[in-house]
Amino acid sequence: MDKTILVVGSVALDSVKTIHGSTNHALGGSAVHFSLSASHFSPVKMVGCVGEDFPPQFRKFLKRRNICQQGIEVMPGKTFHWVGRYDRDYKNAETIATELNVFQQFKPKLNGDHARCGVLFLANIDPDLQRGVLEQMGKPRLVACDTMNYWISLKKQSLLKLLKKVDMLFVNEEEARQLTGEYNLIKAARLIMKMGPKGIIVKRGDAGAMLFFKDNVLSVPAHPIEKVVDPTGAGDTFAGGFMGYLAAAPDWKNFDVIRRAMSYGTVMSSFSVEDFSVKRVGGISKKEICARYGKYVDALHIK
Amino acid sequence: MDKTILVVGSVALDSVKTIHGSTNHALGGSAVHFSLSASHFSPVKMVGCVGEDFPPQFRKFLKRRNICQQGIEVMPGKTFHWVGRYDRDYKNAETIATELNVFQQFKPKLNGDHARCGVLFLANIDPDLQRGVLEQMGKPRLVACDTMNYWISLKKQSLLKLLKKVDMLFVNEEEARQLTGEYNLIKAARLIMKMGPKGIIVKRGDAGAMLFFKDNVLSVPAHPIEKVVDPTGAGDTFAGGFMGYLAAAPDWKNFDVIRRAMSYGTVMSSFSVEDFSVKRVGGISKKEICARYGKYVDALHIK
Repeated sequence: MDKTILVVGSVALDSVKTIHGSTNHALGGSAVHFSLSASHFSPVKMVGCVGEDFPPQFRKFLKRRNICQQGIEVMPGKTFHWVGRYDRDYKNAETIATELNVFQQFKPKLNGDHARCGVLFLANIDPDLQRGVLEQMGKPRLVACDTMNYWISLKKQSLLKLLKKVDMLFVNEEEARQLTGEYNLIKAARLIMKMGPKGIIVKRGDAGAMLFFKDNVLSVPAHPIEKVVDPTGAGDTFAGGFMGYLAAAPDWKNFDVIRRAMSYGTVMSSFSVEDFSVKRVGGISKKEICARYGKYVDALHIK
Repeated sequence: MDKTILVVGSVALDSVKTIHGSTNHALGGSAVHFSLSASHFSPVKMVGCVGEDFPPQFRKFLKRRNICQQGIEVMPGKTFHWVGRYDRDYKNAETIATELNVFQQFKPKLNGDHARCGVLFLANIDPDLQRGVLEQMGKPRLVACDTMNYWISLKKQSLLKLLKKVDMLFVNEEEARQLTGEYNLIKAARLIMKMGPKGIIVKRGDAGAMLFFKDNVLSVPAHPIEKVVDPTGAGDTFAGGFMGYLAAAPDWKNFDVIRRAMSYGTVMSSFSVEDFSVKRVGGISKKEICARYGKYVDALHIK
């Protein structure tokens, strides 16, 4: 059983402002947040693209977590740059600028090692590209994907074709509603399952996350954090913890395994918001993860 | 140890419209929702007021749950009537009319039986009246109160005097922030504790609830409900389940007991939203409560 996760998504430079400070061209992007989080549980290979300006120290940062960067293509031009701002409530990111740069030309190309990975995570990119990746893969035993409101509006048919072939879908509340036209999340999840996925994870920010898997429904709270510094990438970090744990498990379809994966996802995302960019998740120790996981799980064990 | 809970609050007639239908002068009010919920766990005595129009069948409905109504004063005029509407997302109630009627003259008067109750719940009324009730009490071993944005704005000093004397405070997120000027809920709860209460329960609607008790922080999810019909009174129903369970426990300050109380509060409020008015909570069986509690607690026991 191959435990390696292939992740395909964005590698970005983020300039973010929150009430606790700001960053300028810090390491970001969905594939990056996911990979750093997942790397604490399973081997990770990234597929993405950067411009010639991508700083070597960010390469080193990813390397320290043993993330395979062979699939990161260097293209002429600049790296994807996102400029955003969060209000005090951190509920919505205000995008000030999105400079797609080389990311506009991104067309994921997999090599033989990539295609043989046992687990695939398709981070939020154009569903046509996501499908292109899936076609290049061998026979992964677990395929998950993320998406966003933009693709649900503009490329719904393409997304629906993709969903037929994925095991797990990550969405937020609004996306679940937009995709189905159903307001209630239980009903929405049931409708999404009819589109293909066996499992739906609804990310709810500080309200935690919900999991729908076959007939099971599980709602878990967020781990309360006293100082939220930067929520950028929290969703991808959640997905990284979740998928990283599942990839390492002998049977990812076991519901006890999936419940633990939800808890690891929650714990990893709680770390991610404690500092800007990927500082916290990139530098964290296994011991810190286990300690918070234990605390989280124990608190919910109502005796 | 006396397990009887005295609750002081509103008895109302509610006319509510939601996407699933409407009610016209249905049984409502904070003291009613609280009492019906708490009555499944402990004996309850109500103090409140109604007008001459208060329907006898509502008296019977409360009597069926063995709720003592001696403290419900009948005053000349009409019963408090609230007219409201919820949007599809059920997040905010839109008040169409508030006819206070006899409730404007409400001045809670306790008899000897009331004053001897071991547990007191001060539902959301004017903090001056809440303090007046507390002064009439003997020595209750547990005092909890609820409040609202209106009193925090208009009678903060009076509320602060009250908080010095209560063990547990129920608030929602906005109220916690308004009371302290602190956005983060952990920090806000810590500031509120300095005002007097040992414990703070932050009700978060479909995001569940948070508990702060001494050094402990616990966040619990809501029990997912497939068809939310009417959220009116869900907060008071939560408080009823929570306080009802604590009142029956030998040591309410034990954190395991408090965690179970949070779960019973969650479960009771999940029932309350499944039908209009108090239909569901008033008619529910102990067996149904235990079944859902078991399901809720088991799902959160991550193994």
